[in-house]
Amino acid sequence: MTTESETRILDALPSTLPDVDRRAVLPAGFRAAGRAIGIKASGRPDLAVILTTNGSAAAAGVFTSNAFAAAPVTLTRANFAATSRDARGGFGLADAVISTSGCANAATGQAGRDDQLDVARLLAEVAGTTTERTVLLSTGVIGTRLPVERIGAGLRAIRADLAASDAGLEDAATALRTTDSVTKIATTTVDLPATNGGTVTVAVSGIAKGVGMIHPNMATMLAVVLTDTAIEPAILWELLRPAAARTWNQISVDGDTSTNDTAIVLASGAAGNAPLEAGSAAARTLGRAIEAIARDLARQQAADGEGATTLITCQVSGATDAADARAVARAVVSSSLVKAAVHGRDPNWGRIAGAAGNAKLPGRELLEAAGAQAATTRAGTAARVDPDRLRIAIGGHAVFDGTRGGPIAFDKEAARSAMDTPELLIRLDLGLGDGIGEAFGCDLTEQYVTENSEYTT
Amino acid sequence: MTTESETRILDALPSTLPDVDRRAVLPAGFRAAGRAIGIKASGRPDLAVILTTNGSAAAAGVFTSNAFAAAPVTLTRANFAATSRDARGGFGLADAVISTSGCANAATGQAGRDDQLDVARLLAEVAGTTTERTVLLSTGVIGTRLPVERIGAGLRAIRADLAASDAGLEDAATALRTTDSVTKIATTTVDLPATNGGTVTVAVSGIAKGVGMIHPNMATMLAVVLTDTAIEPAILWELLRPAAARTWNQISVDGDTSTNDTAIVLASGAAGNAPLEAGSAAARTLGRAIEAIARDLARQQAADGEGATTLITCQVSGATDAADARAVARAVVSSSLVKAAVHGRDPNWGRIAGAAGNAKLPGRELLEAAGAQAATTRAGTAARVDPDRLRIAIGGHAVFDGTRGGPIAFDKEAARSAMDTPELLIRLDLGLGDGIGEAFGCDLTEQYVTENSEYTT
Repeated sequence: MTTESETRILDALPSTLPDVDRRAVLPAGFRAAGRAIGIKASGRPDLAVILTTNGSAAAAGVFTSNAFAAAPVTLTRANFAATSRDARGGFGLADAVISTSGCANAATGQAGRDDQLDVARLLAEVAGTTTERTVLLSTGVIGTRLPVERIGAGLRAIRADLAASDAGLEDAATALRTTDSVTKIATTTVDLPATNGGTVTVAVSGIAKGVGMIHPNMATMLAVVLTDTAIEPAILWELLRPAAARTWNQISVDGDTSTNDTAIVLASGAAGNAPLEAGSAAARTLGRAIEAIARDLARQQAADGEGATTLITCQVSGATDAADARAVARAVVSSSLVKAAVHGRDPNWGRIAGAAGNAKLPGRELLEAAGAQAATTRAGTAARVDPDRLRIAIGGHAVFDGTRGGPIAFDKEAARSAMDTPELLIRLDLGLGDGIGEAFGCDLTEQYVTENSEYTT
Repeated sequence: MTTESETRILDALPSTLPDVDRRAVLPAGFRAAGRAIGIKASGRPDLAVILTTNGSAAAAGVFTSNAFAAAPVTLTRANFAATSRDARGGFGLADAVISTSGCANAATGQAGRDDQLDVARLLAEVAGTTTERTVLLSTGVIGTRLPVERIGAGLRAIRADLAASDAGLEDAATALRTTDSVTKIATTTVDLPATNGGTVTVAVSGIAKGVGMIHPNMATMLAVVLTDTAIEPAILWELLRPAAARTWNQISVDGDTSTNDTAIVLASGAAGNAPLEAGSAAARTLGRAIEAIARDLARQQAADGEGATTLITCQVSGATDAADARAVARAVVSSSLVKAAVHGRDPNWGRIAGAAGNAKLPGRELLEAAGAQAATTRAGTAARVDPDRLRIAIGGHAVFDGTRGGPIAFDKEAARSAMDTPELLIRLDLGLGDGIGEAFGCDLTEQYVTENSEYTT
C-alpha cells in the first residue's frame, strides 16, 4: 500500500520544458560538415566546422571554471569580448565554429596559444571573416601541440562538404566525438512572435560530446546549440547561463572538470521573429527551448560516462530553495558510494541520505549564473536538510521516511529489480519548502577504473 | 641532469612535527580494554572502553559536518556543552569513552537517540560517573538499532579486563576496527615545563579506525587521542581544531563524509606539567605532538582505504597561503582520475594539473578551524593557481614546468617504476608565495568498486 505522502516522492517532477527529439535538424542560417583529417590516430572524423549564412550570428558561451583553461577556451572568450566590447567574454558575434578532436591544446603555454590563433586565422579565411568572429573548440590529449598544417589542409578540403543540411549537422556531431559511444544530438521547436504580428516557429538544435573528464587524457564536455532565432548576444547569454547551471553543471561523472569544457549557442536570426526583449515572455520561451536541449544533451552525456551502465537522475523537491535542491541532487549523483551501490543494484538509502547530508552549495559565480541572487551569500555553505523530514524513494520504491522515524519496510528484491535499468530515478523530498532541482550521473563500475588506469601518458 | 628548481619540487616538505612510533603506549591516567560482545556478526572485538583514573579528563572533539550526524555524535556534543557550559559542544570533561562497532546508530530517529542515552547511562554506571561525562562512538550499519541489552552485558563483563596497560590500549584499538585491515596506533612524547620548574615528558597516543565512508554501510573515521598532560578543555580544543584541519580533513578516500566521523582528545593531567597557557610555547609544543599523532593516524587510514594499494601524499609549496596549498593538495588526492592513474602507475601530470586547476577552498567553518582567519571571506572560492608558474613532480620525477612552457621530457619508464610503491609522493610548487600544505589519499582500484557494489542493504 502506498500512502499519499509516498506517492509524492515516487513520481518524477513535472517538466515545464518543451519535448525534444534526438534527430539532426539544422536550423536555418547555418552550414555544417564533419571530416576525418588524421588528428586522431584512429582515423575517425575529427574536424567539425559550422559556418553562418545569414550574416554574423549572435553567440554566447559558458566555459570551464578550471584555472588551467585551454588555449581554445581563452581565445574564444577573448573573441567574444572583442566583438561585444564586454570584458566578461560570455557573448559576442560569430561567423564560424571549428572543433578539432584528438588534441586538446591544453597546458601548451604560449606556443599553444600561438597555434590556436593560427587555426582561427585559417578558419576565418575559409569563412570569409575576421579571426575575432571565430569560435574554437578542441578536445583530446593534453600537453601536445595542435597539428596546424594538417588542420589548414583539412579546412581547405572541408569547404566542399559544407552543406545547409541535416546530414551536415550529423557529420559535425560525429566529428565532435572522442571516446563517446554514440553521437549526441537533440532538437526542438517553439513559437515566437513574428515581425509581421503572427508567430514564427524557430528551431533549436544541439550537438555534444563527452562529459567532464571522462577520457583518460582529460577529454571534455563540448556542446554547440544552433537556432535560427533573431536575438541580441547579451540576451542570448542571459538565457544560456541559467539553463547551463541547471543542466550541464548538474552532471557528474567523476567530479573532475576538464580544461576545455565549453557550451556555445549561436543564433542566426534567419527565422524572422520579432526582436526579443530581455525578460519578455518570448525570451523565456526561447530560454526553455535552450534548456530542454541542454538537459537532453546532458542526460545523453551522463548516460555515456565511461563504463556506465545506468543513467542516474536524482530529483529533489521540498527544498528551502532551488539552489539547495540542486546541491542535494548533485551530491547524491556525485557520491562514489551511491554510484557503486547503483552498479550493484543495491537500494542503499543510507548512502543517499549520507550524501544528501554532505551537500554543499557551489561558489558564488555558479549561484549567480543560476539566477539565485539571494543565495550568493551562502556560496560554499551546507545545503539545508533535516533528517527528521527527509523522504527517499529509489526506482519508485519508498525506502526512508524521516517523518515516520526513518527506515521503512520495503520489498528489497523488487527494489533491486527496479534498479536494474538503463535509467534510474532517485527521488528525495526534503520537507522544508518548495525548491526543486535535479542532477544527472551514472553508476561507478570496475570498467571505469580499468579504462582510467591504463597507461596513456 | 636535475636543475636547482627541480630539486625543490622533488623533495618532501620538511616536517616540524615530532617523530612518532606505531606502538601501543597508554599514557598515565587511563585504563582501557576491548572485547567481543556480538554486535558484529563476525564475532570480532566490537566493544572498546577507556576510563580515566586521575579524576575527569579534559576532553575536546571534532565531529562530522554531515547534517545527518548520528546519535552518538549529537549526544557527545551535548555532553561537552553541558560540562563546559559552552554551547559549541567542542570540549568539556569526560570520565569514560565507549566505542561500539557494527551498528552506527545513524538515521534511527528519536528511538536511536533514546538508545544512545541508555548506553551512556550504562557506561556511567561502570565508570562511576554521570552520563554527561561520557563520550560515545559508534560505527557500522546505519538504520539499525543499537543492541542496548547486549552492550549492557558487555560493559559488565569488560570491567575485569580494564587495565592501565599498553595491552589494554591495543585491545581497545582492535575493537575499534570494522573493515580495517590493520590496527591503527601511534605514539609520541614531548617535554613540557613541570610544576616544579624542570621539565616533564608527556605522552600522546592515538588509536583510530577507518576513513570517511570506506565501508559499504557508511563506516566511519574514528580516532581517540590520549595524553597525560594537564590542560584546560578549551585550550585543548584550540590545539585539536587546526591539527585536525591539517590532517584528518586532508584525507580523501572517496569524497564522502560519514554521519559518525569523530576525533576525540582526552588529557588526564597525570603528568604533572605546569598549567598550559593558551598560545604559549608549551601549548604549541603539545599541539605539534597532537598533530603528529593525527597526521600519522590519518596516513594509516588513507593507506587502508578500501581496495587501496598505494598511499598518495600530495605536498604543495609556493601557494599564496596555507589554505590554498591545502585546497590544491586535497583536490589532487580527491581526483578519481588521478587516483586511477596512480593505480595504473601512469605518470599522468595532465590529470594532476587539471585537478589543481579545479581546487576550491572549503567552507568558512573549516577555514576558521584551520586558523586561516584572513581567508574566511574566500570560503568556497577557487584556489589561486597559475599554469605558467606551476611545477609538478611525481615520485621524484619532475614532469611539468609551467615556467618553461609546460610539459618537460622525463623518463616515463623510470617514473612508472617509481610509482609502483606503497607510498607515493606527488609534489606541486605553485610559484606564487610561501604557503605549504599536504593531503593524503589512495589509489582507486577495481577492488574498491567491487567491494562497494556488493549487495549489503
